[in-house]
Amino acid sequence: MPRIDLDSIAQTNATGYPAPHAAQVAERWYRRLGPASGLTDFGVSHVVLKPGTASSQRHWHEDEDEFLVLLAGEAVLVEEGTRTPMRAGDMAAFPKGEANGHHLCNESAADCVFLAVGRPSTSDCHYPDIDMHLSNGVYRHKDGSSF
Amino acid sequence: MPRIDLDSIAQTNATGYPAPHAAQVAERWYRRLGPASGLTDFGVSHVVLKPGTASSQRHWHEDEDEFLVLLAGEAVLVEEGTRTPMRAGDMAAFPKGEANGHHLCNESAADCVFLAVGRPSTSDCHYPDIDMHLSNGVYRHKDGSSF
Repeated sequence: MPRIDLDSIAQTNATGYPAPHAAQVAERWYRRLGPASGLTDFGVSHVVLKPGTASSQRHWHEDEDEFLVLLAGEAVLVEEGTRTPMRAGDMAAFPKGEANGHHLCNESAADCVFLAVGRPSTSDCHYPDIDMHLSNGVYRHKDGSSF
Repeated sequence: MPRIDLDSIAQTNATGYPAPHAAQVAERWYRRLGPASGLTDFGVSHVVLKPGTASSQRHWHEDEDEFLVLLAGEAVLVEEGTRTPMRAGDMAAFPKGEANGHHLCNESAADCVFLAVGRPSTSDCHYPDIDMHLSNGVYRHKDGSSF
């Protein structure tokens, strides 16, 4: 059945972020739809952001495009020096290599639901607000030292 | 601005389908969001299906995954021998090479809006309901003759 049955797909709040940076995404509950439905060309995550939660630490990828669409609720798209309100039906695109970190913050009192589309992250990921950097799949401090 | 401004992106009902197969998609109005927003890893189309219109001829791709999510309105997902009602928030995934042709048909009296995600079609595409086949970017009859 190509129609996706969300209830049949495990929901998780797992993150690879080390402490203390995991706290901001602790109430980000997501389902990876690609593996569950047989997609391999790209990934799609169905994400529920509880109030007070961010979609990620603010970041940008060197070599992976990202796209998102809000399905329900509201969030603020935070980028370098800008805050953009987003609501159901709003979409945003983040081309690879654009050095403008982004994340969604649910500052409302209700859940925000969105889909994120992208390829698995294999390139370096930059986090402008915190002392963290992702390279070769490992999170380290910006000076290269371990968490 | 990563938030996508739909009004700034040209909408088209263009199709490569030859007559008479173009008629079924004549009121499929879409915007290609990838080129407009700088995405290259995958494509995203924002599609408005007018009442009585289909998203495509029923088809399946040999080597491209497809994913869709309904944003507004209703449609029927028609596959081989099945009809599945879809409404806002419903999603479907079509892994490459699954020989089960699919399309969305707007049988309602209101517009249906959905997003389709995929890579550009470069592999053969099969159309089980009609005498048409796509190979090397060219639509022909199933016996290889030209339209």
